[in-house]
Amino acid sequence: MKRFGFLLATGVALLALGGPAFAADAPVLPPAAVKTATDIQGKALAGSGAFGFVESLTVRVGPRLAGSPAAKLSHQWAEARFKELGLTNIKVEPFTVDGWERGLEMASITKPVAHHLHVNALGHSVTTPPEGIEAPIVRFDTLEDLEAAPEGSLKGKIAFVDKKMSRLQDGGGYGEAVGVRGKGPEAAARKGAVALLIRSIGTDSHRFPHTGITRYAEGVTAIPAGALSNPDADQLNRVLALGQPVSIKLVLSSQAMGTLNDANVLAEIKGRELPDEIVVIGAHLDSWDLGTGALDDGAGVGIVLATAKILKSLPQAPRRTVRFVLFGAEEVGLVGAEAYAKQHAAELPKHQVGTEADFGAGPVITFNANVRPEAKPVITAIGKILAPLGIVPGRGPSSGGPDIGPMTAEGVASAGLGLDGTDYFDYHHTADDTLDKVDPKKLDQAVAAYASFVWLAAESPVAFGPVDKKDH
Amino acid sequence: MKRFGFLLATGVALLALGGPAFAADAPVLPPAAVKTATDIQGKALAGSGAFGFVESLTVRVGPRLAGSPAAKLSHQWAEARFKELGLTNIKVEPFTVDGWERGLEMASITKPVAHHLHVNALGHSVTTPPEGIEAPIVRFDTLEDLEAAPEGSLKGKIAFVDKKMSRLQDGGGYGEAVGVRGKGPEAAARKGAVALLIRSIGTDSHRFPHTGITRYAEGVTAIPAGALSNPDADQLNRVLALGQPVSIKLVLSSQAMGTLNDANVLAEIKGRELPDEIVVIGAHLDSWDLGTGALDDGAGVGIVLATAKILKSLPQAPRRTVRFVLFGAEEVGLVGAEAYAKQHAAELPKHQVGTEADFGAGPVITFNANVRPEAKPVITAIGKILAPLGIVPGRGPSSGGPDIGPMTAEGVASAGLGLDGTDYFDYHHTADDTLDKVDPKKLDQAVAAYASFVWLAAESPVAFGPVDKKDH
Repeated sequence: MKRFGFLLATGVALLALGGPAFAADAPVLPPAAVKTATDIQGKALAGSGAFGFVESLTVRVGPRLAGSPAAKLSHQWAEARFKELGLTNIKVEPFTVDGWERGLEMASITKPVAHHLHVNALGHSVTTPPEGIEAPIVRFDTLEDLEAAPEGSLKGKIAFVDKKMSRLQDGGGYGEAVGVRGKGPEAAARKGAVALLIRSIGTDSHRFPHTGITRYAEGVTAIPAGALSNPDADQLNRVLALGQPVSIKLVLSSQAMGTLNDANVLAEIKGRELPDEIVVIGAHLDSWDLGTGALDDGAGVGIVLATAKILKSLPQAPRRTVRFVLFGAEEVGLVGAEAYAKQHAAELPKHQVGTEADFGAGPVITFNANVRPEAKPVITAIGKILAPLGIVPGRGPSSGGPDIGPMTAEGVASAGLGLDGTDYFDYHHTADDTLDKVDPKKLDQAVAAYASFVWLAAESPVAFGPVDKKDH
Repeated sequence: MKRFGFLLATGVALLALGGPAFAADAPVLPPAAVKTATDIQGKALAGSGAFGFVESLTVRVGPRLAGSPAAKLSHQWAEARFKELGLTNIKVEPFTVDGWERGLEMASITKPVAHHLHVNALGHSVTTPPEGIEAPIVRFDTLEDLEAAPEGSLKGKIAFVDKKMSRLQDGGGYGEAVGVRGKGPEAAARKGAVALLIRSIGTDSHRFPHTGITRYAEGVTAIPAGALSNPDADQLNRVLALGQPVSIKLVLSSQAMGTLNDANVLAEIKGRELPDEIVVIGAHLDSWDLGTGALDDGAGVGIVLATAKILKSLPQAPRRTVRFVLFGAEEVGLVGAEAYAKQHAAELPKHQVGTEADFGAGPVITFNANVRPEAKPVITAIGKILAPLGIVPGRGPSSGGPDIGPMTAEGVASAGLGLDGTDYFDYHHTADDTLDKVDPKKLDQAVAAYASFVWLAAESPVAFGPVDKKDH
């Protein structure tokens, strides 16, 4: 769909009419709702229980790769948590996903000096032959440099793209660096390469490679692709600096598992006045297979469940329905999010706003939103209520989070509670993404922010959407 | 040997006679020597070249396990560096060592929930059967608790000792925790256990197990022994906290390699006045096999070689001979150090002092020594010369470093330049001990300290030893 206008009719009459509601000091949010938002924050900061949810998920389920038996276990786990919390309309909404499994992974420099390298296959990488590939390596600074290599110049060689990711609080270095992970195998294969290695898209200096999804293009040979840890990429550079030809042996025995079942798991608190209008707070339930997915996105799951717990504890239900969505198969290409947008297409015009927690375990440091102009004063007012948590306005409009994308593409408004990502890419998609990296107090602050935002979005006298798609 | 007295006769006549040399403000070190020490510090701080040596060793040789082909390569590397530096009396002094190699290593929790665990075998661990061992796990807080378990109570079980190491600047937590690594397999086997797992002796929270040597007792079954990373030990505790029986599957396919050749590599700058008296500065050339041994003890090797480079650049040779000793096979039980003490037994009475750099890449933060009483004023004077580098007196007498131990056991004086070990045990004996953890500027400071100390020890008018062995 392109646009929808019905939300304009709900609850915005006062603003649309002008007059007293536009007076400088007239509240854009009902004072009782604001009072409750402050109470929510206090409860969350006193101990939201979010950490316990993350612990339970990472201990009782562990890593939960899209389509895997563990992913199925995670659906059961989520359903049970929603039931315990007393939520309603609990649903496990199925979809299918391309399955994939990691196998034996080994890399070493064989010439001119021998070095073991820490490598992990990129998600969906094809396998090497069982005996591996041994070939000379050719290094590129960037994906663009690889793409500019002469045709056929990598025939029989392994391409190595050495792009370094920058550490930024908002994670902005990721977008600059991650292109090579998705497009690198195609680009290398077009030049004749037999495999691709990339420097990990990550900010740490530990010997953990960062995995993540890659893609293959129709009609181009699919070549095995792996990530080296940053220290191993550094070491490879030092060996290259010796000035002699460098060969690498690579074994990646990953395999495609065919079409597998996966699911989104949803539950609701029914709205007391506008039950058909929906505030979505989401996170993704799936994770990569190397760590236990504590930061990515167990923390988000914990924030969603702790938000549900607090909202359920309030004397009255929120004005609009709040829907808690734990998306499946985010890591392998937003498969669950696309399925949600499709399965709920008819409902999207009734979505007040979507927001996701998928950037680690807090604290929340910025707030922004992408709403229609009439709702901007409400966003400003919410920003003031979030400010005591140490939250400042974020730059530009928000995307709401990866799994919110398919909704916003249909005009749903979105809000971004920007988590502090300074260290996030130290652990992202590595074996080191484990529970010890989650600070319960910071997570409580994030719950305070998300839960009070969700409450206020549900209470808002103004509809947040639809938004013009060209704003994205 | 027990004691030796000949050093008393050399160069200490003035002090022994009393008189002007004891006057409160008479210098205990020649002013020219002090001036040179300050020059040495300035040169080192301006760029000692130590980092380049560490880089060369870790890139051209890499990990260098005692007795391995890489260890042999490291001897050639060291010999070549000593030659380049223009040192004399270069020797590769052989000894033999029990060889050992790591193989396939896998651990997982199999019941009541499945979890992959990061494990590495302890050094010299025996192998599991090829198919591994799957057995219930029994947890102990400490080695003492394991030793107190009833006889036979661990029959058919895997013992898990969960002792946590404390983070202390001087590395003091290591001594408190490391006992279980050496004695654990024997203690567990005595109670009937089929394998031992320990929490890593390390201060980090990354999924790198910390290896290190273990021992087996005569007449007690040798059982496989491995270390779990700290996050994996945490996860095992969480699974144990579920209150159900926990089983682990363990595969460690390491193997003994028989008696292998190894060596210490030595070189000298001959003393200009007392060439038979020897100041030893050492480090160990071998490393564990998982990382590249950059901190342990590539950094020490860099400090030793950079010290040689600076001392060689001076207008005159030091008064005593300075001997640069790169010990082999430290990690597997000070085998090279014992060989040195034995092979140089006749010379030990002529050793002015021994000091080793084997605690990371700096900076040096403390200085202490174990010398005969008559030499203490010199040590105090040297301490004042080191103070501008930010070095304060260390507590108690110094051991000089692990490889100096076998000398001090024979009465050789020792000096300790205490390196800042706050982060040392984050990386110690892990795959993560790589060059990126070495800060060239901090390493330069350490060279400034070691080189100026070595110079002053060589220039001292007073003999530092012998020391009474009971002082140790």
